[in-house]
Amino acid sequence: MVDDATLLAAVAEQRADMERLLVELVEAPTVLGSEAPGQAIMRRAFAGLGLEPVDVALDPQALRDHPGASPFSWDVSGKQNVTAVWPPAEPADGRSLILNGHIDVVSPEPAVLWSRGPFAATRDGDWLYGRGAGDMKAGLAAIVGAVGALQRLGLAPRGRIELQSVVEEECTGHGALACVLAGRRADAAVITEPTGGAVWTSQVGVLWFQVRVLGRPAHAGEARAGENAIEATFPVVRALRALEAELNAHPPPPYDAYPNPINLNVGIIRGGDWASTVAGECVTHCRLALYPDDHVGNLRRRVEAAVAAARADPAVAGFDVEVRYDGFARDGYSIAADAPPVGALRVAAERAFGVAPAVVASTATTDASILQLYGGTPAMCFGPYAESIHGVDERVHLPSMVQTAQALALFIRDWCGLKPAA
Amino acid sequence: MVDDATLLAAVAEQRADMERLLVELVEAPTVLGSEAPGQAIMRRAFAGLGLEPVDVALDPQALRDHPGASPFSWDVSGKQNVTAVWPPAEPADGRSLILNGHIDVVSPEPAVLWSRGPFAATRDGDWLYGRGAGDMKAGLAAIVGAVGALQRLGLAPRGRIELQSVVEEECTGHGALACVLAGRRADAAVITEPTGGAVWTSQVGVLWFQVRVLGRPAHAGEARAGENAIEATFPVVRALRALEAELNAHPPPPYDAYPNPINLNVGIIRGGDWASTVAGECVTHCRLALYPDDHVGNLRRRVEAAVAAARADPAVAGFDVEVRYDGFARDGYSIAADAPPVGALRVAAERAFGVAPAVVASTATTDASILQLYGGTPAMCFGPYAESIHGVDERVHLPSMVQTAQALALFIRDWCGLKPAA
Repeated sequence: MVDDATLLAAVAEQRADMERLLVELVEAPTVLGSEAPGQAIMRRAFAGLGLEPVDVALDPQALRDHPGASPFSWDVSGKQNVTAVWPPAEPADGRSLILNGHIDVVSPEPAVLWSRGPFAATRDGDWLYGRGAGDMKAGLAAIVGAVGALQRLGLAPRGRIELQSVVEEECTGHGALACVLAGRRADAAVITEPTGGAVWTSQVGVLWFQVRVLGRPAHAGEARAGENAIEATFPVVRALRALEAELNAHPPPPYDAYPNPINLNVGIIRGGDWASTVAGECVTHCRLALYPDDHVGNLRRRVEAAVAAARADPAVAGFDVEVRYDGFARDGYSIAADAPPVGALRVAAERAFGVAPAVVASTATTDASILQLYGGTPAMCFGPYAESIHGVDERVHLPSMVQTAQALALFIRDWCGLKPAA
Repeated sequence: MVDDATLLAAVAEQRADMERLLVELVEAPTVLGSEAPGQAIMRRAFAGLGLEPVDVALDPQALRDHPGASPFSWDVSGKQNVTAVWPPAEPADGRSLILNGHIDVVSPEPAVLWSRGPFAATRDGDWLYGRGAGDMKAGLAAIVGAVGALQRLGLAPRGRIELQSVVEEECTGHGALACVLAGRRADAAVITEPTGGAVWTSQVGVLWFQVRVLGRPAHAGEARAGENAIEATFPVVRALRALEAELNAHPPPPYDAYPNPINLNVGIIRGGDWASTVAGECVTHCRLALYPDDHVGNLRRRVEAAVAAARADPAVAGFDVEVRYDGFARDGYSIAADAPPVGALRVAAERAFGVAPAVVASTATTDASILQLYGGTPAMCFGPYAESIHGVDERVHLPSMVQTAQALALFIRDWCGLKPAA
């Protein structure tokens, strides 16, 4: 068995390669619908490891037929996940593993708030700035760095290792779900989300919903003859905030550690189209979380009830208010803190960092739930330290990317086993 | 002097032609930026009267240099007003007249609320439906009908009559202002806005402004780490509603006849771009009126003060809030009820309709203020009866279009004078 120091040193030597890959990835603005250039980079990165990249396409109908799917209104045809298998050395008596990351990033807007170009991948000391630097291109680079280091040492895993760079983690999880539909399963999965070195073993579910308010447009000079859909939206938002407060009143463990584990986010509003016309329509896009022991169908009913109750407000009463769904409809999930892969990952992380990693329940959602709930693969998140993900001046701490890769290398040794490559 | 009955009958015979022109105009969706097809129709209509159509282009720099201009961010180069002069019969001893209408229409959205296609120009009995049918393509058709009828009678005016089909009445008045810049003046102007047979002799000014709120985007899973620009906008709107109430507290005559002469309209809101990201930016477009004795500069200061005061609300305090201007920055105006053209138009309308027209102060703005304030042309609005302008299922009462043309014919006779064409 190769010792810790050898593995850690071998991964550290990959630092420059990981950083180069990370910069290249951040410079590709892989927002929804523009993932392809990022996937082309990942194809080359996997090929650079001597592995054969295999695309896993998103099949809209197959996705829609799956119980874990989210509704989606946009075109996914032609979208590809990029995967590669590092085949086990015979007799392949080790446990298998999926190492997964997502290539898609959220919009950097308002870019005017950034102190640098969101896709310029600028470096300042140990930090690399850019949309997606933390969430989660450093995680993808860490996966490549870990595998590359083991290969440099002339090692091969004793269990099958599959690398996955998926799309649509930020809106549906349908990249990961397409991998599940393609039969991609393993004895464990690590998603290198920016957990800051913690092991995430639980996460909330997430529901995206839209509230569409229809009013009555009119000339602004006779505005009282109309019904303004924008302002009628305000009491509906208040009602949704009240629902959020209810959902946070008695959080079940481990979410009772948070003051506000269930976050409502009013993410998008689009109303009216002419300053001198009373706004006839306003659509508000929200995100609301749910506990792992809840189900997204229940939350839908509560959202719809809250919106219906808001219509008792005289300011909303005359309006047509509808709740619509497009995007995330995802249950939460948990993996037991004493499950074998969790224990092995915690040990690996502690040996890499010198301190025991925190075990955390996340108030965000990731593809871990897709892999575990629908793929049957016990899944965890573990990755670099990042700041301001989804925010302004997102950045990742580059040493934490290397540490992530180091912990992954130890975990591969401990979970899959290693032996000299044939 | 040709008698009333002859003129009224001659105009009535133009009804089918006016209706055909109106349908053709409504079928052209001449929203901002798409005015050209409508202007092509008007060019043909003026040429059909035997007049030579003359384009008056919008010159962006000349407009911006004019004190009556409004700020604008969009491209106006290539936009054309269409004008035509009906030359007076010698010795041209009559008073001159501008007959003006605008070709642009406001957006019909949300079109889903319409019971028919907004640009289908469908007819139901005496009503023609469609965006712009009332505001104000029926008025343009009435102008053509009035002139056509007089020509059929072999008559010519004794004063110069200029016909104008202008652009951008709905956002800046820069079509009319370009005509003023081109030196187009007259002893009176009638704008055939849908006044329902009333004579409008006063109108409010209008200010368009945008409130841009910048917050701090963050991941929805840690929404409290962000500052949501959408929800911070709500208290700002409340503050603007309070300003509106102040402005309506003591309306000066003739606006004291209205319960709410000064209307604030929250016309457009655009905030955020991702459901799972705390909205970092929200821009709200508003329209607010001012009395004719006020000035748009004063109103700007009051808006800015109200927005600044709203920042005392803890829900707004941490945000960057800016007031921006794009579009209408227009003072109101009045013409004396006993001014000569007003008296002549009232008499003509009474003789056409059999009842005296109402004299009205409008809570909307029109190009009348441009023509009078900056062109020195005493201006009034007078036109057909329409319903739901800027609203759903806008429609115009076709007989009122004919009556408008009849009153215009009498007014031309009384104001400009008529004699047999050479």
